[in-house]
Amino acid sequence: MEVYHVTKSDTCRFDGLGDRPVDALGGKTPLEAAATPNLDKIATMAECGMAHTLGRGLRPGSDTSHLAIFGYDPEKYYCGRGPIEVSGLGMELKDGDVALRGNMGTVDDDLLIKDRRAGRIRDVSPFTKLIDGMEVDGVTFIVHPGTAHRAGVIMRGTGLSSKITEADPHEPGRPVETVLPKDDTPEAKKTADVLNKFLREAYKVLKDADANKERVQNGELPANFLLVRGAGQYSALPKFIDKWGFDACCIAGGGLYKGIGTFLGMEIIDVPGANALPDSDIEAKFKAATAQLGRHDFVFVHVKATDSLGEDGDYTGKKEFIEKADKAIAHLVDLPDDALLIVTADHTTPCELMAHSGDPVPIMLRGKGVRTDNVTAFGERSCARGGLGFIRGVDIMPQVLNLMGRLHLIGA
Amino acid sequence: MEVYHVTKSDTCRFDGLGDRPVDALGGKTPLEAAATPNLDKIATMAECGMAHTLGRGLRPGSDTSHLAIFGYDPEKYYCGRGPIEVSGLGMELKDGDVALRGNMGTVDDDLLIKDRRAGRIRDVSPFTKLIDGMEVDGVTFIVHPGTAHRAGVIMRGTGLSSKITEADPHEPGRPVETVLPKDDTPEAKKTADVLNKFLREAYKVLKDADANKERVQNGELPANFLLVRGAGQYSALPKFIDKWGFDACCIAGGGLYKGIGTFLGMEIIDVPGANALPDSDIEAKFKAATAQLGRHDFVFVHVKATDSLGEDGDYTGKKEFIEKADKAIAHLVDLPDDALLIVTADHTTPCELMAHSGDPVPIMLRGKGVRTDNVTAFGERSCARGGLGFIRGVDIMPQVLNLMGRLHLIGA
Repeated sequence: MEVYHVTKSDTCRFDGLGDRPVDALGGKTPLEAAATPNLDKIATMAECGMAHTLGRGLRPGSDTSHLAIFGYDPEKYYCGRGPIEVSGLGMELKDGDVALRGNMGTVDDDLLIKDRRAGRIRDVSPFTKLIDGMEVDGVTFIVHPGTAHRAGVIMRGTGLSSKITEADPHEPGRPVETVLPKDDTPEAKKTADVLNKFLREAYKVLKDADANKERVQNGELPANFLLVRGAGQYSALPKFIDKWGFDACCIAGGGLYKGIGTFLGMEIIDVPGANALPDSDIEAKFKAATAQLGRHDFVFVHVKATDSLGEDGDYTGKKEFIEKADKAIAHLVDLPDDALLIVTADHTTPCELMAHSGDPVPIMLRGKGVRTDNVTAFGERSCARGGLGFIRGVDIMPQVLNLMGRLHLIGA
Repeated sequence: MEVYHVTKSDTCRFDGLGDRPVDALGGKTPLEAAATPNLDKIATMAECGMAHTLGRGLRPGSDTSHLAIFGYDPEKYYCGRGPIEVSGLGMELKDGDVALRGNMGTVDDDLLIKDRRAGRIRDVSPFTKLIDGMEVDGVTFIVHPGTAHRAGVIMRGTGLSSKITEADPHEPGRPVETVLPKDDTPEAKKTADVLNKFLREAYKVLKDADANKERVQNGELPANFLLVRGAGQYSALPKFIDKWGFDACCIAGGGLYKGIGTFLGMEIIDVPGANALPDSDIEAKFKAATAQLGRHDFVFVHVKATDSLGEDGDYTGKKEFIEKADKAIAHLVDLPDDALLIVTADHTTPCELMAHSGDPVPIMLRGKGVRTDNVTAFGERSCARGGLGFIRGVDIMPQVLNLMGRLHLIGA
C-alpha cells in the first residue's frame, strides 16, 4: 500500500494490496472484507480507478512497478535489482558500475554451502569492511553491509557488463556457483572472470578473519562467502525532482523501497518502528509523513506487510493488517484540500496464488480539482467503476501534474 | 461467438456477435433483445468487459481478429488469407511458400468467365488431382480440394512473393485477370509470371479432362479454370502450445476457423452437423467441447451464424440464433470452477451495416480468481460497465495466463 502527498502531496502505497475474491471471506477480497471506514471516506471524496502498473497482461515485480508509478518507464530505466538495493544502503553509483546484492553465507573448504545466511548473522559489517575496496584486475569492489546477513556490492571499472549469472545456488549442500557470462561479449566474460576471482580472494580473507574465529569459538557459523545475485548495470537516470519538479521524501520500512527512494534522489526519512513487518509502527510512519508536508512537495509512504501476508496466503492476516492501516491513516481524511492524496498499490498479491499477479490494483486521488465519482468504498471491484478508468502506472505522475496545473501544453 | 476453456479452459467465440441498437428491436441489439438466461447467469458469475480485438478504431477481419484473440499480433503474424485457408485443408506449409485460395470455375475458349463456381460443383477433387504437383519454371504447385467449388494452392520454390494481384475477376462475363506484380521486386514479377503460366497450363489439362467431358454430357458446367486469390507468403510462427503452454483443440464448422486452428497447431475436432450455418448442431459442438476438457488444456469453440445473419441484415434471425446458442451452452453454467470459461466474439457485425465494424465486442471470463462485477446480463452495453474494462484482443491470452498464475514476473 502506498500513499503520496503532492505539493503538498501525500502518496500512500500499500505493497501487494490487491487480491482476488477469497471464498472464506464470503467471496470478498481481503481489502473488500476489511472494515476500512477511513479509506472508504477518502474514496467518497476521491476519483477512483484501477492501475495496471506495468500495463495490461504484465505481472509486476516490486521494483519495476515502483519505477512505473514514479513515472519511470521500466523498459527504459530498469537496470536490475542490484543497483536499487545498493542505493538503499546509501552506496553511490556511477555510470557503468555493476551492482549486486548478496548474502554473507557459510561454506566449507570445498565451497559447499553450509548456510546461505551464516546462521542468520545480525551484522556483517565486521566482515564487509575486510573486503571493501579490494581491487582485482583493475576493478574495484565496494562492499557495504545491509540489514542482517545482507550486503551490497559495486564493481567499478571499465568494460563491465551485468549479463552474468549468480554465485548463489540458493540451496544448502550445493557448491557455490561459478559466475558465467550470459552473452558472448568480452565485457560479460571479463565481469564474470573478475567477480569469480574476487569472490575467492575475499573467501581467503574472510575464512581466516579474527571475527570469524570468534564466531566459531562461540559456536556460530562463520560468515565466509559472499553469495551475490541480481547484477545490474547502473546508467544514470534523472532524479525525481528533475523529472517532475517535486522535492520528494520516502518513508518505508523495506530496504528495496528505501533503495528506490534513494535511487531517485528522494530524502529517506527513517521512522523508528517501521520494519516492513505486520507489527510495523505504521501509525508512526503516517504521522511522520504528515509532518513532512511542509518540508517536501511529495511524500511517499510505503507499507509492506500487505504484500508479505498475501505471499503467505494469510488472507485473515492481510484483512486485519489492512484494518490496522486504515486506522493509521485516519488523520488523512482531514488532509487540507490543497494536498493531493494518492492511495494505491504496486501490484496484486492474491492469497490464492501466494505470489504477484497481473491483476490491476485500485487507485484513488483526492484533492482539489478531482472529478469525484460514485465510488464509496476503496476496493478492487468498486474502483473498477471509478471515474479514472483503467490507467497504466506511468500515467499516474502525469495525472498528478495535471491536477497540479503543471502539465506542459502540447500545441497551442 | 467463441467459447474457450483453459486448463481446463473453455473458450467460446461467437463470430460477429456484437451489433448496434436496432429500432425494430426496441433500440436493443440482437444480443440484448435475445432471451439468454444461461449467458446471463454466467455473466453474473464472471468478470465482464469489452474487447477491441485489433485495437480501438480498427475494423477487424475474421482472420486477423482470431489471431489477435489467440495472442498473435496480426501486425507481426498475419500473412494473408491464403496460408490460413490452405492450413484448414490440411495442407502443410513451409517457410517461404506462397499460398492462395480459389474457386474452380468455368471459362469459355476466350477465357471469359461463364460461372465462378462451375455451377456450384460439389466436389473438385477429380480436377485438382489432375494438376496437383505440376511444376512450372522450378516452382511446384500443390493443389488440394476444398469444400464444394473451393481449392487451395501452394506455390513452393525459391524467390517467391505474395505481392501479386488475383486471377478472379469476381464477375461472370469478364475475362480471367492476368496476375500482376504489386511491387517492383523481381520476386513479385517471377511469382506472377509463373502463376499465370501455371493457370493456363492447368486450363489446358482441365478442359480436356474426361471428368469434364462427363460433366458436359450431363448438362453440367465444366470445372476448367482455377480462379485464385488471397495470396499470402507463409513464414513459420510459433505453435499455440509453444507460445502459451496450452495444448489446444478447435471445434468449428467454418473452414477459416478450422484453418486458424490448424495454422496454430491445434487439434481439429470434427463434430457431425457443425456446418457454420444457422441450422448447425451447435449443441453437439458444445457437448463435444466439454468432452475435450480432460484431454486438452484449451478448448476453442467457434460459432459462425451470428456473423452470417448480421451480414444478411437479419436481426430477427440473429436474435433467434443467439437464443438457440444460449440453450446450447446451458451446461456451461455448471462448469467446475477450475475451468476458466471465456465467451466473446471476434468482431461486431451490425445488421445495420451488413458488414464487420470497429465496435468493440462483449467478453466475459468465469472461473477461479476472477473479480466478479455487477454485470448480470451478457450484452454490448452491460459488459461496457464490467470490471475488466476495455481490452485489446492481444491482451486476452495474457489475462488467461494471469488467472492461471502463469505470467512471467517482470522485475523482482
